[in-house]
Amino acid sequence: MSKEEQLETVRHSAAHVMAEAVQRLFPEAKFGIGPAIENGFYYDFELPRPLTPEDLPGIESEMREIISADLPFTKEELSREAARSLFASQPYKLELIDELSDDVVTIYKQGLFVDLCRGPHVASTDAIKAFKLTHIAGAYWRGDEKRPMLQRIYGVAFDTQTDLDSHLACLAEAARRDHRKLGKELDLYSIHEEIGPGLICWHPKGAIIRQIVEDFWKAEHRKQGYDIVYTPHIAKIDLWKTSGHWDFYRNYLYSPIEVDEQQYILKPMNCLGHIMIYQSQIRSYRDLPVRYAELGTVYRYERTGVLYGLARVRGFTQDDAHIFCRSDQIEAEVAGVVKLAQFMMATFGFHDYELLLSTRPEKYAGTMEMWEQATESLKHVLDVLDLPYKIDPGEGVFYGPKIDIKLRDALGHDWQGPTIQVDFNLPQRFNVNYVGDDGLEHTATMIHRTVLGSMERFLACLIEHYGGAFPVWLSPVQAVVVPIADRHVPYAQQVERELKQAGIRAQVDDRTERMNLKIRQAQLAKIPYMLIVGDKETASSKVSVRLRSGEDLGSQSLADAKSRIITSVEAKV
Amino acid sequence: MSKEEQLETVRHSAAHVMAEAVQRLFPEAKFGIGPAIENGFYYDFELPRPLTPEDLPGIESEMREIISADLPFTKEELSREAARSLFASQPYKLELIDELSDDVVTIYKQGLFVDLCRGPHVASTDAIKAFKLTHIAGAYWRGDEKRPMLQRIYGVAFDTQTDLDSHLACLAEAARRDHRKLGKELDLYSIHEEIGPGLICWHPKGAIIRQIVEDFWKAEHRKQGYDIVYTPHIAKIDLWKTSGHWDFYRNYLYSPIEVDEQQYILKPMNCLGHIMIYQSQIRSYRDLPVRYAELGTVYRYERTGVLYGLARVRGFTQDDAHIFCRSDQIEAEVAGVVKLAQFMMATFGFHDYELLLSTRPEKYAGTMEMWEQATESLKHVLDVLDLPYKIDPGEGVFYGPKIDIKLRDALGHDWQGPTIQVDFNLPQRFNVNYVGDDGLEHTATMIHRTVLGSMERFLACLIEHYGGAFPVWLSPVQAVVVPIADRHVPYAQQVERELKQAGIRAQVDDRTERMNLKIRQAQLAKIPYMLIVGDKETASSKVSVRLRSGEDLGSQSLADAKSRIITSVEAKV
Repeated sequence: MSKEEQLETVRHSAAHVMAEAVQRLFPEAKFGIGPAIENGFYYDFELPRPLTPEDLPGIESEMREIISADLPFTKEELSREAARSLFASQPYKLELIDELSDDVVTIYKQGLFVDLCRGPHVASTDAIKAFKLTHIAGAYWRGDEKRPMLQRIYGVAFDTQTDLDSHLACLAEAARRDHRKLGKELDLYSIHEEIGPGLICWHPKGAIIRQIVEDFWKAEHRKQGYDIVYTPHIAKIDLWKTSGHWDFYRNYLYSPIEVDEQQYILKPMNCLGHIMIYQSQIRSYRDLPVRYAELGTVYRYERTGVLYGLARVRGFTQDDAHIFCRSDQIEAEVAGVVKLAQFMMATFGFHDYELLLSTRPEKYAGTMEMWEQATESLKHVLDVLDLPYKIDPGEGVFYGPKIDIKLRDALGHDWQGPTIQVDFNLPQRFNVNYVGDDGLEHTATMIHRTVLGSMERFLACLIEHYGGAFPVWLSPVQAVVVPIADRHVPYAQQVERELKQAGIRAQVDDRTERMNLKIRQAQLAKIPYMLIVGDKETASSKVSVRLRSGEDLGSQSLADAKSRIITSVEAKV
Repeated sequence: MSKEEQLETVRHSAAHVMAEAVQRLFPEAKFGIGPAIENGFYYDFELPRPLTPEDLPGIESEMREIISADLPFTKEELSREAARSLFASQPYKLELIDELSDDVVTIYKQGLFVDLCRGPHVASTDAIKAFKLTHIAGAYWRGDEKRPMLQRIYGVAFDTQTDLDSHLACLAEAARRDHRKLGKELDLYSIHEEIGPGLICWHPKGAIIRQIVEDFWKAEHRKQGYDIVYTPHIAKIDLWKTSGHWDFYRNYLYSPIEVDEQQYILKPMNCLGHIMIYQSQIRSYRDLPVRYAELGTVYRYERTGVLYGLARVRGFTQDDAHIFCRSDQIEAEVAGVVKLAQFMMATFGFHDYELLLSTRPEKYAGTMEMWEQATESLKHVLDVLDLPYKIDPGEGVFYGPKIDIKLRDALGHDWQGPTIQVDFNLPQRFNVNYVGDDGLEHTATMIHRTVLGSMERFLACLIEHYGGAFPVWLSPVQAVVVPIADRHVPYAQQVERELKQAGIRAQVDDRTERMNLKIRQAQLAKIPYMLIVGDKETASSKVSVRLRSGEDLGSQSLADAKSRIITSVEAKV
């Protein structure tokens, strides 16, 4: 048994111990299932009353008692009939027994608890060395919202207390960096029941970050030969029938809007608008590649249950582009996108990522030869750029092979990052052509690509990566000027003016509060620079500079402080 | 009779003369109506075959014959019965006679033509001094699409040939500047039947102009203390019921989208998203004014018949903002908006405009006192700024008084420009409050305002104002480098690179075409600078500079040419 399998066995056994603890406290409990999961375990219960977080210490204490009693886990095999009578008062277990295909049913016992279970388990409860119950959630029996809602208790378990502590510290850090929590604390965005779930209102401070990202994105795309376009958010449904989206992605599409007896839908993708623009002229082989980029807001249906802050939403702005090219240009174009993506990622502070190349699935558009050529092109690009990648066999979209890049943030979490997809399907469905040097019409190849994904998810990723302490160039407020007393306010305002004239996002905190409170609040707001001004600073045209880290840089001339801030903005750090 | 009334009489008489001409050419013609209109006249006919523009000279020639015969117009009064028998073969006239309330029916005769008409008319046809038939259009009888489609011939008529010629020249210039024609020629945008009427795809060159306008707009708004926000394009219908939009503007709203058994609609306005953001925190009197600005794309239904290029569309991006303020701040805020609007207008080359102040209508929200105070504030602002304005009595929106600014373009056409509306309604419906210095809740005042209107209409206006020859800072391509022969291409590319590095939108025309053709095409594309390079220029690192006006500035060092272009960009000319 591998180390990982051993730990999984410990976690599964901890679930049984938790079930026994719950049985001691609630003898009338009905038991669902209790598997091991990543880092820990859970068990689903039907209980006479709703649990609260305050119940967890009591359950933990029962568990510790069971563990220190070092009760052995014993396995037995019963006939289905015997099992049915053993679990006669456990309706969920009975349902599971009835679905088993074997005639022999395996059970595990420890102490007074017995469970329908295939195992394996540890020899005895003492093998569970370090655990903690973390939270309670509701969970429908078998995930079916028409079945009863059970109470699920989650726990984590590790080999040693040290491992457990470091995992809990990591969880706490993740909770501190949770973009939904920081989004509220830093006043970046909101979601309103009145507008609808999954629909984001960007507040001034979040919108400043978005605008900086967008401006940077547009400038870099123009430098790389992209043309920026804008296309409408609705289009006639027939367009989406021609494209195949209506058939393939119906579940993600919103219901139609009637206009003059025609049906329109909210666009789930920007590609069709770009095809329309491409087709507004005859294109020659000399015009290619044509690269259309759009910060295009699209709307896709997601179930309420999976919506998650900014990371999973119903309306989002893709940093989208479509490249129309000849097949002999695919390689150079893909290389250009990968390099642009690397540059963008590095600029935003992501240096750790994983590349996946997804190949031909069973159902596919285009010819085998097209797939082979395009897949080889993608591989060749990654080889030439000396980028390690994994192959995800058969996981390409039906319309062509693709490269996905997963970003790893400061906490080691993976985020869906840039994606580059070759498309053989839409050019055929829409007759996306160019006139070759032979004077004949040829079908163009399309490449779909994003380098950030969407503004919403990328902001979520930035928030968690930086824990809200954005680099200076992205910080909504770059410097706060703190007058020590009211008499320093005029000088503080002069400092603010000079900073603003230099393009720095500065503000004075002129509230009649104590200086220490203002500094603490500025640190909580993750403002990179605090410029404190009192008598000495006013007299000498200086500022006393503190960083959000708490570091005190002492008194500096205003000019020096200004150029320090400008330098960090320009360096994008 | 005033000069204007006299001219109207001439035009009305010209319509009768045209009808007689048509009667000569098509004896079986049935006659609709033929009034005077601005600058001219029309007449509606039912004819045995469709007319083409080639028919107009023939009709004009008949008209000239009738005019030179100097036939008198004579008036007669008949009984309704006599009129019915006179017009027995004219079904449209019979319908009109049946609807007259008088028992006495007036007719006018000239030559062999007789018409049901109240007059007045000129004494005889010779009084028609200068006319021209301009075009033919289809027109439903009485504007009802269920009645027959008649053929309408339009003409213009003036006192003198000079007046007519100058009007025709003006029409020709307007046709040359028509944004629909230039939009296509300059490759700025397109509208696709596949996507839907009134929905704009911005091509790369149009999108560059839009981005420059948007970037400028955002920077200026930030300078003036606006915060930029983003809000979703759909929201639950209940929000629009609470606001009153669902009741008041139902005809402009699209049909609902069903999401999880809730109805959503495309947003027709950005205000409600801004209210949601405002309400995400408790606001104090010290926080006000709060100014939220958004380039928000809204969707409103318009009948297909009224859609007109970029000027009247179904989806458009407003340069919107909402100011939440105390009532004692209305005046300063409105003054700020007016000054910002003036600055923006001047920057884009509009110096001629008219201000309208619209006051309380019969049905209104808020109290009489609020209206009086706000209306006085608006007047006071305009007086202090020394801006002449007209009062449009009772034409305010039901929710508050407003100031509209109409821009006059280079051809003297008026465009709907900035608008500033005080709103007493939404703050009450949504409880938009702030905590006053008395510690109590007070209702805030909202100001809705745009300074450009919408990106779509404003681009239409820019195109027509400049006839497509945009100022250098707005030109999609600012300089084209034209190599005289193929051997000059490498130097031309070097020039292009240097210009691009200086931030100039430059391109090389390296096609194997004759230089003169390239220059002519660059002029048609309204590119401000043409830099021609041959042997002499290549040898001496110079460029030969031509303007789109045709002016030849001769040979200059590349550095001089570059700084000339940069100077004009910075001066926004």
